Amino acid sequence: MRTLLLLALGLSTLLSGLAQKPHRCKSPPYLEGKLTAIFPEGKTMVFEQFYYDAFEQRIRVIAAGQESNHSLHVDILMLFRERVYYEINYQNQSCVKMPLSAAFIPIEIPYDAQHNAQFVLGTLSAPGQGLLVNDWVGFIPEYQAKYSMSVTEFGCIPITFLYHIEKMGHVLSSFYDIVVGIENPEVFVPPAFCGSAKLVEQTDGKAADFFTALNSN
Amino acid sequence: MRTLLLLALGLSTLLSGLAQKPHRCKSPPYLEGKLTAIFPEGKTMVFEQFYYDAFEQRIRVIAAGQESNHSLHVDILMLFRERVYYEINYQNQSCVKMPLSAAFIPIEIPYDAQHNAQFVLGTLSAPGQGLLVNDWVGFIPEYQAKYSMSVTEFGCIPITFLYHIEKMGHVLSSFYDIVVGIENPEVFVPPAFCGSAKLVEQTDGKAADFFTALNSN
Repeated sequence: MRTLLLLALGLSTLLSGLAQKPHRCKSPPYLEGKLTAIFPEGKTMVFEQFYYDAFEQRIRVIAAGQESNHSLHVDILMLFRERVYYEINYQNQSCVKMPLSAAFIPIEIPYDAQHNAQFVLGTLSAPGQGLLVNDWVGFIPEYQAKYSMSVTEFGCIPITFLYHIEKMGHVLSSFYDIVVGIENPEVFVPPAFCGSAKLVEQTDGKAADFFTALNSN
Repeated sequence: MRTLLLLALGLSTLLSGLAQKPHRCKSPPYLEGKLTAIFPEGKTMVFEQFYYDAFEQRIRVIAAGQESNHSLHVDILMLFRERVYYEINYQNQSCVKMPLSAAFIPIEIPYDAQHNAQFVLGTLSAPGQGLLVNDWVGFIPEYQAKYSMSVTEFGCIPITFLYHIEKMGHVLSSFYDIVVGIENPEVFVPPAFCGSAKLVEQTDGKAADFFTALNSN
């Protein structure tokens, strides 16, 4: 009996030791949801509906917003494996197909991120009234970007991502209405009128990366 | 059997009709937690630990932050029933007692607020991974302030309050680590060295209201 108790105590200490420290995590491979993004110094604000497939490395973003003095509407399908992205215009039934150089970056906490803080949105005083969130900070040399990423403790669901990118300034994305899964997989298939679109090379000879693709209009 | 079924159907329709529409709500009377507040146009950012007692109309705020080029530290105890507030300085063991004209405003959605949106932080796809939030908008004539208040659907716990005040600009408060209850009720009792503090009249003859008290240092 005493041995069992000691074993149980030892095990619970070991497990609690393992569990206490927040772990870097990866979001589920299929996600859809919304986000508001505020681009450099608050000059651009966009609302986005996004669809994310980490298995086949595809992202669809339908964004509407305001940039300085003109409104903005973008519908982009990024196919990272095929290294192309489409700018889709349903109204004109037109489609621009562009090269995409960037590697697919899954929604995850990078291996070298530092844990910054754990906090509760709402309260844990009663069930259903609070959300446990971890904030991680770090640096992406490729984009010369400092970041702060907040994801839920359970499920690794994105809450807010703040980037400070050398060339662009601050980009703040706040996620909401996330669903795990993809309701309609056809969002990742270019519409029929894109079939005839020819690949347009960028004028500067460079293929767009993730951030410039999102910020191209 | 058929009558029972019809009754059940009717009842569930009635109840779902009642439950579907988000209701204006009042936060629990005892709260403590933290918030970050960003004052006019991002020039001032403060971290606050706050204690809130709606029964006896007392608020204690311990704030630290940065205002333009100097750092800021304030410890304020607001006793709305006694119409005074204390600025407490533990380091100097000194205390300033000032008149407080404002009526106590409980943390609640005002009766004339309009429901703006319901959204999920994180996801409802799995338990413990999401938080259902309602956003309400309105106008407070007293402060000439437009507001947007987000509180949890269950429990009416504050998440973010955004005010646009005519005289001050934007004030954005983001709440976190909220606990329902008060751990140490002595936070609402002025420390012993405040006993001798005499009431200091404001130079302009006006007693501070809630916002100017918080923004006085």
